[in-house]
This record gives sequence, C-alpha cells and structure tokens, in this order.
Amino acid sequence: MIHRLAIVGVGLLGGSVAKAARARGLAHTIVGVGRDQTRLAEALGDGALDQATTDLPVGLRGADLVVLAAPVLVIEGLLGSVAAAVGPETLVTDVGSTKGSIVRRANALSASQPFTFVGSHPMAGSERAGYAVARADLFQGATVIVTPTDATVPRATKEVSAFWEGLGARVSHLDPGAHDRVVAAISHLPHLAAFALVAGAYRFEPTALGFAARGFRDTTRVAASDPVVWQEIFHGNRDALLTSLRSFREALDEVERLVVANDVEDLRAWLAEIRALRETVR
Amino acid sequence: MIHRLAIVGVGLLGGSVAKAARARGLAHTIVGVGRDQTRLAEALGDGALDQATTDLPVGLRGADLVVLAAPVLVIEGLLGSVAAAVGPETLVTDVGSTKGSIVRRANALSASQPFTFVGSHPMAGSERAGYAVARADLFQGATVIVTPTDATVPRATKEVSAFWEGLGARVSHLDPGAHDRVVAAISHLPHLAAFALVAGAYRFEPTALGFAARGFRDTTRVAASDPVVWQEIFHGNRDALLTSLRSFREALDEVERLVVANDVEDLRAWLAEIRALRETVR
Repeated sequence: MIHRLAIVGVGLLGGSVAKAARARGLAHTIVGVGRDQTRLAEALGDGALDQATTDLPVGLRGADLVVLAAPVLVIEGLLGSVAAAVGPETLVTDVGSTKGSIVRRANALSASQPFTFVGSHPMAGSERAGYAVARADLFQGATVIVTPTDATVPRATKEVSAFWEGLGARVSHLDPGAHDRVVAAISHLPHLAAFALVAGAYRFEPTALGFAARGFRDTTRVAASDPVVWQEIFHGNRDALLTSLRSFREALDEVERLVVANDVEDLRAWLAEIRALRETVR
Repeated sequence: MIHRLAIVGVGLLGGSVAKAARARGLAHTIVGVGRDQTRLAEALGDGALDQATTDLPVGLRGADLVVLAAPVLVIEGLLGSVAAAVGPETLVTDVGSTKGSIVRRANALSASQPFTFVGSHPMAGSERAGYAVARADLFQGATVIVTPTDATVPRATKEVSAFWEGLGARVSHLDPGAHDRVVAAISHLPHLAAFALVAGAYRFEPTALGFAARGFRDTTRVAASDPVVWQEIFHGNRDALLTSLRSFREALDEVERLVVANDVEDLRAWLAEIRALRETVR
C-alpha cells in the first residue's frame, strides 16, 4: 500500500496510472502535478486524483512513489528539480518510451545526491493522447519494461516492478541500452517504415492511395500517429533507430536481390523463413 | 442473367464467385473446372456448382462468361487453351492480382483468333486459401479493378463490370500498367516491407520479437501471408514492385536525413504531411 502516490503529467499514461491505482486500491492518496490547474480538474472531479497542484515540490512532498508521465524530453528536463525535491526514501520512476538518456541523467543525479530512481516503459498507449482517453485497465495484460542498471538500488527495481504488476501489467527487466534497441526494432522502426510507405506509395503512384485495402491500412495504421510525439521519439532514440534502419535496409536489399534473380525456390524459402519468425509473435 | 457461367479454379476466389452468383441468382448454370474432381465435390455438394469437370474444353463449352480464378502464372499458361476452346461470343475474364502479363498474352491471342477478354482484379481475399474459406459475400463492398486496353471490345468491359457489380463490388477501370503500379504501391510493396521489417528487427535484436505489441503486429500482419502466393506475386509484378521500392527507399533516405539533422520543426512537418496523406485512406 502506497501512502502517497505523485503523478507528474496527468494525460493518457499518467491519468491511467491514477485511475488504475485508484480502482485497485493501491494508494491512499493520489496527487496529480500538471502545468495547468484547469486540465487537472477533470481527474479531480471524477475521483482519480485526491489532490492536484501545479507546484512540483508541493506535489512531491512526502510521496512514497513518484511517476513521471510527461514526454521524454520533459522528463529529462524535470529530473533535476525532482531530485532536489525528494529524499532517498521516495522511489521515482517514469513512463518514457526511450530509456538511455533518462536513465543516464538520473544516474548522474544519484551520484551527487540521495535520489532513488529506476526507469519504466509501459508498452501501452493509443494514437490518441490526453486524460480524456485514460483508462483504469490500460495496463491490464500490458508489458512494462523496467530498466535497472548496476547503479540502481535493488529495492527500487523490486518495488517499482511490484507497482506495475499491481496495475495488472507483466514486467520485464532490460538494461536501458537493450530496451532502446528492442523498442527501435519493434516500434520506432515500424513507425518510421509506415510513414515512408505512405510517402513512397503516394509519390510512386498518386492515385494508389484511393485503392488502399486492408493490407495497406494495417501496414500503415501507425502513420496516423501524432507527429509531435513521434518527432520526439525518433530524435530521442536516434542511435538505435538509425542502426535498426540499417538492418531493415539490408533485409530490403536481400529480398530485392531474390526478386531480381527470379528464382522461385530461393524467394519462397526466404519468405517462409520470415513467416516462421513472424509466427513467433503472439 | 448468365445462361452458363464457367469458373476455372474453385478456391477462395473462384468458390466465392460461384457462391455469390448463386446467392444473387445471376447465373442459370454454374460450372466449375478444376484439376481434381474430389476437390470440386464440396462445391457441388453444397449447391454452389451445378456441374464440375476436370476437362477444360468440356467445362467451357457454351459458356457466356468464363472466370479464370487460378494463380497468375497458371492463368497465363491456360489462356491459349481457353482461347482455343471458346468462341467470340464467350466473355473471358480472370481474377489475377497482376494484370500486365496476362492482358498482353490475352491481347496477343485475340489478334490471331476470336477471343473476347478483359482482365479483372477483385481486391478481396484473405491470408487463407481454398474453397473452405470461400464466401458468398466476399465481393460485397470490395473494389474490383477491370483493366481494358485499346484492343478491348467495349461489350466485354461493360458486361464484365456489370457482373462484378452484380456480386456487390464497386468497379474501377485502369489500364493494366496503371493497375500494376497501383497494386505494387498499396499491396505488393507493403507486403515486401512487412517481411523485411520482421527480418530486420530479428537480426538487429533477436530478443525484440518477444516484446512485440499492437503496432508491430499490425505493421507486419501481412508477413504471415503464404510464401507460395507471394513469391508468385513478387515475381509476377517485378518491374512495378522494384520501381515502387525505389520510391520507398527515397522516402526512407529522406526521413533518415531528418532524424540525423535533429531539427524538431522539419521532422514534425514531414511527419504531419505524411499523416495528412494517410488520413485520405478510408
């Protein structure tokens, strides 16, 4: 049981943490910290929050657990103020979708002051954003990757993992670098490819989009995602994204050679091998 | 009303043509032609077919309309025998997913004998194949592209289009070359990219597929497609596929430059432009 849970940023993810913690009775008091008091009013009004404030130190005072649920760059910018406002007994985690830079910054802060941090990435979300789409069951069955390093206090990893499990999630542990490679491969690169597929299709044959059927709609669905969010993710995970793009280009070159060579068996074998890999995906 | 409808190949598409024509009372007699009498028995047994034969000339004799519903290369191979077996009063169409080579072959046959052909591509299907998954409503609301050329008899285009509309489809007309570019852009290239995404993700980070969530599953769903079918499609539409791949690579290069340059506004603007294009897709 958490005595005081503070959530910084009460949008889709932060709002869902509040609603899920409330629904499961995991926290006695839930405090929301935001930039705009009127936007916190809805979460206060429907009972997801007990308190709401625009004053970060006031919101964090006495918290057992702080969840930073702002965009990645905002989290990076906030960490210094958060570390200054809390003591070592307060556990701090975040929900950023890239972890390398956030965890490096947090570890640097921990080296010079008592600051107990471990990174989290709940792999749940929506193309939509904002508290209006927050849901108490957002984390039910979702995967949350928690990213301890050698510098992480074991208690932080254990208690933050237990918190996400308490919200219904399955927790995996990865070091921040492996996390960033994994999400590049399964999320950031597919988003980048979906955007490029729409652009490439349109430029190759402008009338083509008018004939799009289910295959195209599925393959490019994520190209309907928010440009502001995805600019930040692409830049935030740039190194892993660009390296994974190299692997993708190599695979494109490989299948292109098989198409050009016109060898029936070789192309079938390649496609069958990849289909078998795809079938390992739940 | 068609007196005698002959369907060559009674799998997902051919079987669905039979079921839909039966359900809508569009044909007096429906004949199925296949390689294996026992595999035709199911469609005879459930009433989708009135007659079934493995003898092509027998099946086509007296038909008003012939629908060739075999794989693309099989259709190309069959056209000579079909042209030899029918008179000019018989309309012949097909369901092949690439049209350039089939229509060229049919036009060449028409130049030396009475043979009334126009190509069709019903954009309906499934990852699954075979008569067992055929459905009377497969074409309901689907797009069928009919591909007349300057050499096509207008009656053929008109009556074949009316037939597909009679099965519930929306019909568009494109010349075979434009058709092949359109399907390369919206279907064949996305399939190729989906296969390459799975391969690239796995090789970049073998553990990544274990964390795949909805975005990856949607983007790569079509990589679960049949290798035999897609080898044939990729090779069959090779020229348009390779040219569309060039456009895709240019779009990847473009977004890569924007990620490397780290300019927030430029990348946001590019993503917003592509998202607006994506939103034109129903």
